[in-house]
Order: sequence, then C-alpha cells, then structure tokens
Amino acid sequence: MKRVYNFNPGPATLPLEVLQEAQAEFLNFDNSGMSIIEISHRSAPYEKVHNQAKADILELMGLGDDYEVLFIQGGASLQFAMIPMNFASKEKPGSYVLSGTFSSNAYKEAKNLGVGEIAASTKDENFRRVPRQDELNINPNAAYLHVCYNNTIYGTEFHYVPEVNVPLFADMSSDMLSRPVDFKKFSLIYAGVQKNLGPAGVVIVVARKSFIEKSPETLPTMLRYDTFYKKNSLYNTPPAFSIYIVGKVAAWIKNCGGLKEMARRNSIKAKLLYDAIDNSNGFYRGHAEKNSRSFMNVTFRLPSEDLEKKFVAEALEKNLSGVKGHRSVGGMRASIYNAMPIEGAEALADFMNQFRKNNSGSDNNADKSTE
Amino acid sequence: MKRVYNFNPGPATLPLEVLQEAQAEFLNFDNSGMSIIEISHRSAPYEKVHNQAKADILELMGLGDDYEVLFIQGGASLQFAMIPMNFASKEKPGSYVLSGTFSSNAYKEAKNLGVGEIAASTKDENFRRVPRQDELNINPNAAYLHVCYNNTIYGTEFHYVPEVNVPLFADMSSDMLSRPVDFKKFSLIYAGVQKNLGPAGVVIVVARKSFIEKSPETLPTMLRYDTFYKKNSLYNTPPAFSIYIVGKVAAWIKNCGGLKEMARRNSIKAKLLYDAIDNSNGFYRGHAEKNSRSFMNVTFRLPSEDLEKKFVAEALEKNLSGVKGHRSVGGMRASIYNAMPIEGAEALADFMNQFRKNNSGSDNNADKSTE
Repeated sequence: MKRVYNFNPGPATLPLEVLQEAQAEFLNFDNSGMSIIEISHRSAPYEKVHNQAKADILELMGLGDDYEVLFIQGGASLQFAMIPMNFASKEKPGSYVLSGTFSSNAYKEAKNLGVGEIAASTKDENFRRVPRQDELNINPNAAYLHVCYNNTIYGTEFHYVPEVNVPLFADMSSDMLSRPVDFKKFSLIYAGVQKNLGPAGVVIVVARKSFIEKSPETLPTMLRYDTFYKKNSLYNTPPAFSIYIVGKVAAWIKNCGGLKEMARRNSIKAKLLYDAIDNSNGFYRGHAEKNSRSFMNVTFRLPSEDLEKKFVAEALEKNLSGVKGHRSVGGMRASIYNAMPIEGAEALADFMNQFRKNNSGSDNNADKSTE
Repeated sequence: MKRVYNFNPGPATLPLEVLQEAQAEFLNFDNSGMSIIEISHRSAPYEKVHNQAKADILELMGLGDDYEVLFIQGGASLQFAMIPMNFASKEKPGSYVLSGTFSSNAYKEAKNLGVGEIAASTKDENFRRVPRQDELNINPNAAYLHVCYNNTIYGTEFHYVPEVNVPLFADMSSDMLSRPVDFKKFSLIYAGVQKNLGPAGVVIVVARKSFIEKSPETLPTMLRYDTFYKKNSLYNTPPAFSIYIVGKVAAWIKNCGGLKEMARRNSIKAKLLYDAIDNSNGFYRGHAEKNSRSFMNVTFRLPSEDLEKKFVAEALEKNLSGVKGHRSVGGMRASIYNAMPIEGAEALADFMNQFRKNNSGSDNNADKSTE
C-alpha cells in the first residue's frame, strides 16, 4: 500500500490505525448491519460514539463537569461570527489579538457586527511572532479576549496563557490536543477538527457551561450555543462520520499516553526541522521568531523561488507531500500534527540537509527571490 | 457480512456499491497515498471530486449554466435562517407553506427575524396532506414562496409544482433526486443530504446564479450565499468526505439510469407498502391522505400501541430495521429512499401481510390506542 508523509496544513494526516479501524468496520458498524454513515443519530450505537468522544476530549483536557463539549458545523469561520453574536455587544465588545490570518478574520466578523476591538497586533511584523503579555491592551468591559493559539499560516504559537481580567476565548484549530495547556483558564475553546483531530466537517467547542446555557433570543436557532448545549449537539442531524473519527483519534491519543506524550513527540519532530533550519548557514530562513515558533507548522524560505519550486518537486519524489507554504508567507510549511510519525519528520529533516548540500553552490545560495 | 434493510428516515440507507467503493479506496485515494479524509481541499484530486459532484447533480436535474450548486454545512436547519437573512425583508417578506414540522421550523426562523408570513397550512389536519394550489394565499410582494416538498415525518409529498408569481424555493431534503421534477420552475432548492444522497454534514443548495451572486453586506461571511458562490464552496475547508460520497451517489444514480429510473423503482416500492396498507381491511391505517402520499416515507398506524411495539420488535428480528415512526404521528414509518432495494420493500410488505394475519384476532383488531 502506498502511503506518503503528508505535511499538508489541513485536511491533514491522521493516525493509520484509526483509518484502518474505520475501514474495517465501514460496512457494518458495531454489528448493526449498517455503515456508520447510514445509522440513525437517535440510535444507541451512535449515541455511544457521540458521548464517548465528548468524555474523552474532556478527560484529555483535564476538564470536569463545569465544561461542555459541543459539535457544530460550519468550520471555525462560522465560530468567528457565532462568538460575537452570542457574547458581544456595543457595551461589552469582543477584544481580539491579531496574530495571523484567522485571528484577523475572527476580528473582522466582530467588527462587521459593530462589536470588535483590537487588543494587540503583530501585523506590521508580518505576524512573525505572537504579541507578548505586556502588549495586550484589553478594554476592561470586554466580553472576552479572543486569541488564535497556533497560527497555521505563519507558523507561530502562543507559549504562554494570557493573564486577563475578562473571559479568555481561543481558536485552537491547529494545536488542539497537541500538548497540555492549562485549559481551565479558558472560558471557551474551539477547533475545526481537520488539522489535528479528524475529517473536515465539525468544530469542537469546549466551553464553561455557565457561558453557553443561555443565548440571546433574537438569534436563529442554529447560531445559538444554547441550542447545541440543551440538545447534546443533537438538535438536528450531527456530522456523524466526522464525530466518529474524532472519537477514534481521541481514543488513540489516550492510548498513546495523552497530551504529555503528544507534546513529547511533537517537540522531537519540531526540533528536527528547526535544527535543520538553524544549522543551514542561512540556506533555510525560518519565518517565525524563535520564541514564537509553532510545534505544529514549521515555516521557512529558501534562497530563491526557483529553489523553492525544486524543493517541493524533489520532496514529493521522496513521498514527502504537502510542503508548499501559504502564499502569505511563501516558501515552505511543514505541518507536523499529532499523527505525523517521528520518522516522517526525520525523513524531511534528512531531505532538507541533503537538498541544502546539493544546492549550496555559489550560483544558488544568493537571494534570488523575485518578491 | 451482516446487512439489514434500513428503513430509517435519515441518516439512511446508501447504495452498497458506493459503500464498497469508498471502503476499498479509504486508505489510498486516487493513488495519492492519503485517505480522502486527509487530502488537501486545494489539491487537484479533491477538486475533481468536488466539481464532478456539482456537474452530475446539475445534469441529473436537467439544469444548465444559469444554476449553481453550493455545498454548505449546518443542515437544512441553518438554511431555514440563511434564506430569510439573505432574501427577505419587512417590505419583501418570505411566504411559507406549512405542511409539516420542518416547513414550520423554516417559517419560525423567518418569523423570528420579523420577515415571515404564512401562505397556507394544513396543521389543523395534523399535516395529513399538503395544501392545494387553490389554497395558496401569497403576498404579491413576497421575496419567495417556500415549500417543503416531501414531509418526512408525516409521509406526504407535493405532487404538483406550485404556480406562483414570486420566486419558488423548496426544501427537498427527503426527496431530492428521487424523481424528475420541473426544477427550472424553482429559484432555489436545498437538501440536507443525509436522507437520500449521502452522509450527514452537507446541504446541497441548487440556485439560480442571479439569486446568489450578491448578499447583504451586513451578513457574516459564512451566512452569505455569495461567499459560497464566489469561492466554489471552497472559502473554507468543505465537508469533503460528505461531498465525496454524494458525488459517488450521484454517479450511481446516473449509472442506474437517472431520475426516471429512480422514480420507477421508488413507485414500485411505495406501491408495495401502500397496497399492504390499503388491502389490510383497516388493520393498517395510513396517516397521509391518498393524493398527498409520499414516495419516500410511508407512515401508518396499527390497531394498538401494543401491536405497534410488537411490530417493531418482530420486524427487527427479520432484519427490517428503523420502522418506528416519529412521535408526532406515532406508529410506523418506512423510509424507502433511492438506495432501498425493491427486495427490501418486498420483504417489508410480506412481513406486514404476515403480521396482520397473525394478529387480526378478535382480541387485537379493535382500536386500543391509548392516545
């Protein structure tokens, strides 16, 4: 069976064991005589999947009964609107830290509703780092402070939990369940699952129950958090297949040893790639500042765009797929989520070292970027 | 391999060939070395799936370049809100035909926004039929007339296309692509796919391009039809697996012979079950009036609730699963979507006839319903 190392930013690689299990039971789930995609969402076998996934997510995060897990469709992009619609007002605006594309998009939705403010931004530095604690300028009347914990496109990540006097909300789409975080400091965390946790089609929202038990009456049913909370995310038909795979991935993380073990593996992988950058005599130039470097997305440039194209093509020949960066940064981006094996990062680091040696001649290592 | 006849209303039975194909290629899609749930939505193999699904849906519906197919998350329930948000206003309200639970929910969302009116309702008759053409009382300034074409819970279906002077919108969640309809008479049709077309997690919206190319600027990005239209439903990560299966189901329908062949099979299946009702000397009582009977969901009661429980239990022993009706109607509901084989309807009709013979003694055929 052909299998590549998939460094795409999302949808992204998933644990092979999870895929094999899902394949084996695809025609007959839990001896029901139906596929998981045919089974009623009101049936006992599905409810078991749904509730076990919720319980495992809370357990992995070390959260108790005061938190609830919701499954909502529409991607993180719909959360960007639902959050201000549910929580913010002109008197109590949402306060936003701008640390990349998605946090900026989240702010735009709040601003469009007339309820958004900026607490800090590193846009002027092309988002090479996340803002520091001492740069956060938060309206004391803010309904919440919103941060994007890991910035997929720029390859930066928060390495501290902001200390704030308002409720703390985080988009963790690209680093959810990748390492232990003091999740209790957050009132609401959400993640589109297609980066680190499962197939596109569901967002996990983990929130303090006290925050989501009552939404404004004027909101449409499907844009109210309380609809999902009161009905166990089963008001209408949930995206069952995505939730089912997320449940298997959560169980896989538990079996591996939980978030500490994920952090151990992820830091080994990240170190392999950052070392290949740092020891390249400037051939590879990391986009992120060192103290904001992401453990999930490693972004770097090469001496020229021609070499970058060559890098992508030769990597693919070695079954290293999806290393092309986002146009906002250019160059390369290697996404090394939970399911990327350490061997994958080793293979990419080896390739980086070899490629540098093969292409560091005097004709190539000058900066020929046409940007 | 165990396989039951699955009469659930949705999620529902899917073509076995489609499931087998998806299973076979689940670990390595299109020789990419990745699963379809791991592959980038910006990759050529995924875009091929996405665009082919769109093209096949339009072809099956006999629609041309003036229509567009959108893939949107959130279920039909989110469409209930998006439609009035995008199209209705106090000056040009949405006009609604109430023919069951879901059409009533659609109306409620418009009403909650202050832009909903009722054109007709059969609620007083417990939704045993859909309103007739001559009962439709449509505001000439209405932005649209909204109908639910097949009413899953009550087992009724429109057998005529309303003739109206305003744009016609239809929720076809439970009969989309089940038979030829003059789709050109509609400006917007939508369907949650989990009943007749695929796994829960995506709604297909088929709309005249002129209707969806410009949405009100004040709406959040993910609630605007023009976001999906301008970006080919790829503004953010789409629910790729659901779209992939929908594409396979659309190809399966084409291979079977298209909507005419679906209609032929569906009418055979429906006749088998309605005959079992009509020839039961009143043992089975259909909920729907005959001229509104659905070809997709056959609803009926038995002489008593005890017999209804017995029917469900004995049916399951014969691998006839999911025949319990919705609490709003009680009794039984057999959903016989495209993918239900004729043999499945035959098996259920045979069981109905045998069950009636076994349970028509003088003790049982009196109405002991406790309702």
